[in-house]
Amino acid sequence: MSEQPLADLRVIEGSAFVAAPLGGMTLAQLGADVIRFDQIGGGLDAQRWPLAPSGRSLFWAGLNKGKRSIQVDLHAPEGRELVEALVAAAGVFLTNFPARGWLAYDALRENREDLVMCALAGNPDGSSEVDYTVNPATGFPWATGPRDLAVPLNSVLPAWDAIMGGLAATGILAADRHRTRTGEGQLIKLALSDVAFAMVGNLGRIAEVQVGGQDAERDGNYLYGAFGHDFGTRDGRRVMIVALTGRQWTALVEVTETAEAFRSLEGVTGHDLSSEDGRFGARDLIAAVLRPWFAARTLDEVRAAFEGTGVSWGPYQTFRQLVEEDPRASEANPMFSTLEQPGIGSYLVPASPLELTAAGRLPARPAPELGEHTEDILAGVLGLGEAEIGRLFDAGTVAGP
Amino acid sequence: MSEQPLADLRVIEGSAFVAAPLGGMTLAQLGADVIRFDQIGGGLDAQRWPLAPSGRSLFWAGLNKGKRSIQVDLHAPEGRELVEALVAAAGVFLTNFPARGWLAYDALRENREDLVMCALAGNPDGSSEVDYTVNPATGFPWATGPRDLAVPLNSVLPAWDAIMGGLAATGILAADRHRTRTGEGQLIKLALSDVAFAMVGNLGRIAEVQVGGQDAERDGNYLYGAFGHDFGTRDGRRVMIVALTGRQWTALVEVTETAEAFRSLEGVTGHDLSSEDGRFGARDLIAAVLRPWFAARTLDEVRAAFEGTGVSWGPYQTFRQLVEEDPRASEANPMFSTLEQPGIGSYLVPASPLELTAAGRLPARPAPELGEHTEDILAGVLGLGEAEIGRLFDAGTVAGP
Repeated sequence: MSEQPLADLRVIEGSAFVAAPLGGMTLAQLGADVIRFDQIGGGLDAQRWPLAPSGRSLFWAGLNKGKRSIQVDLHAPEGRELVEALVAAAGVFLTNFPARGWLAYDALRENREDLVMCALAGNPDGSSEVDYTVNPATGFPWATGPRDLAVPLNSVLPAWDAIMGGLAATGILAADRHRTRTGEGQLIKLALSDVAFAMVGNLGRIAEVQVGGQDAERDGNYLYGAFGHDFGTRDGRRVMIVALTGRQWTALVEVTETAEAFRSLEGVTGHDLSSEDGRFGARDLIAAVLRPWFAARTLDEVRAAFEGTGVSWGPYQTFRQLVEEDPRASEANPMFSTLEQPGIGSYLVPASPLELTAAGRLPARPAPELGEHTEDILAGVLGLGEAEIGRLFDAGTVAGP
Repeated sequence: MSEQPLADLRVIEGSAFVAAPLGGMTLAQLGADVIRFDQIGGGLDAQRWPLAPSGRSLFWAGLNKGKRSIQVDLHAPEGRELVEALVAAAGVFLTNFPARGWLAYDALRENREDLVMCALAGNPDGSSEVDYTVNPATGFPWATGPRDLAVPLNSVLPAWDAIMGGLAATGILAADRHRTRTGEGQLIKLALSDVAFAMVGNLGRIAEVQVGGQDAERDGNYLYGAFGHDFGTRDGRRVMIVALTGRQWTALVEVTETAEAFRSLEGVTGHDLSSEDGRFGARDLIAAVLRPWFAARTLDEVRAAFEGTGVSWGPYQTFRQLVEEDPRASEANPMFSTLEQPGIGSYLVPASPLELTAAGRLPARPAPELGEHTEDILAGVLGLGEAEIGRLFDAGTVAGP
């Protein structure tokens, strides 16, 4: 058996909320030793919703899986010195705390010449911005929702944070690679608004405004530039149907036996349904032709009819339906295990979606209790003796679980 | 000046749509030589919307920036051999094509023992799934939208694809790191549904169902578990306001001069507005108290009032307003440059959001024309001579721009 690919990488994480914790967890799930430090009692995300009936944060538990935790008094000079020493010992530091003062790259680098530090910020100038405030600026909320809705609609998924977490992991590995080859460390800067606006550009939306002169209009659950729409089933469920390729369109027409209807529709309207543009232009008509087929069938009947046909589709599920009905979100999927998270209970926990096959996927692991590894870390990473560790606990500079 | 961190990494990419091209581009933007091969004439995403007035795909141009392009006849045995040789020469292969037959890991590995291959799929079993069909299954569309809406609402941003692209880059760098240390290559498997369902778990939504027994309800633009909401301004614009911390809440109350109103509201209703839970519970009342303040002010007046106060907020912008009004999406932001994309025109193009400071950020680069580098790649990567390259062009096995 090979070792996990990041088994010899140690990362110190000073973080809160989604992006930075997710970046650290992405590395931890590939085998890195990720040590998250928190102010004694927990940071701003220690109690964040969703909560378990016990009052403990499911959010915190979800974004810190497989890390080690140390609680430190960051207001005390000696507590800060411990964090500085951890950063120097590990050589990699990931944070979304303000990267200034004692947490500035140049300050931390005094104790570790080749430090790799990834500093996440809201805006490039270091000012604050969160997913929920940057998303409105991207344009997507005004392009989301039913056609006749008068207000913009936010995403419930903090997508920019999630994208940022993956980029932070990528940036750290790229800088670590550079350091292995050259001996040189560096500061990696990453701003949430840059993550978001770069993606707006990557998806062609900036060019569309500047070159095409158009601004996107909201269009319900229709796809843009191809045919895709949602339909209700006889048993009150909904499904999403997509035809991104000619083959998918042909399969859809065959299974729903709508070829003749679409031929006459082409004759009457002049839409060329053999092209994606034509199908996009005729999307309302196509949806109207297909709707009765779905309305006459239950979700199970739709599933059976599409099985093995090449139709691209999926059922709408609530979070509960996902957990209760979808085998991909169950222990039948090797990515998931049912684990006991202390203080919360037993539930289905994902490992990394990345399966690096040489070592096999590291199984899902629970999140630590705040301060669960304080003593281990002080002894194992900083090499402090028992007496010194005892003194730090007694002085309230550190705390255990 | 240091070299770009991935300057000596070469990646062969066989891809279409969003996730795989984005993964390759993420590496290219950090300096890797990413060579995308396409069937002569282009793959399934060569003509994808949004389109420029010229008919060229802004989507393709956006997701292939800074790569090199070779056009090959993948139906011809000799064309496939060229791709096999490229994969063997580069040692890293990223694809979302079905990883079977000649593109199976074991087949490609015959020519390169330590091959790193990242194979993206829709589902873990290799079956097809796209962002627009997996998103309905996650639960988010039923949790998105106005409270009284009867249908689920899809995300217009292909968020799962975007997250997957970053994970693909992370996985390749992790496997490359392992290879540098051990000499061992490996296959990396990554499924879109795993990416999505793992994130549902990471954000606590699976645990919430299994431990808390709740299913999320749609709640418009309110935040979950804290106070956040959107408001209309006097000039017909909208803003998003968020209070994720006590400090942000205090700043909001101070600037809007609502302290007294909230104190009496606390007295009448019993809500404790000093806690996040209390503010979440009272969110409708809070919104009603704040609404007139926004309705009486223009967006510029809101901006001026919040400047420097610590209030967490952001304006809603359409894609056009983002480009025309937001300095963060302009050349004032060093991440962006205005570039000429051949066949399309001149527009604002992002570089990587990651700024690795040792070498500085690689400037934004246009996407290649299909086949722009066919000749260079055959000569420079495979070492083919002029006569052999001429023969391949004449036989239609490869094509130039």
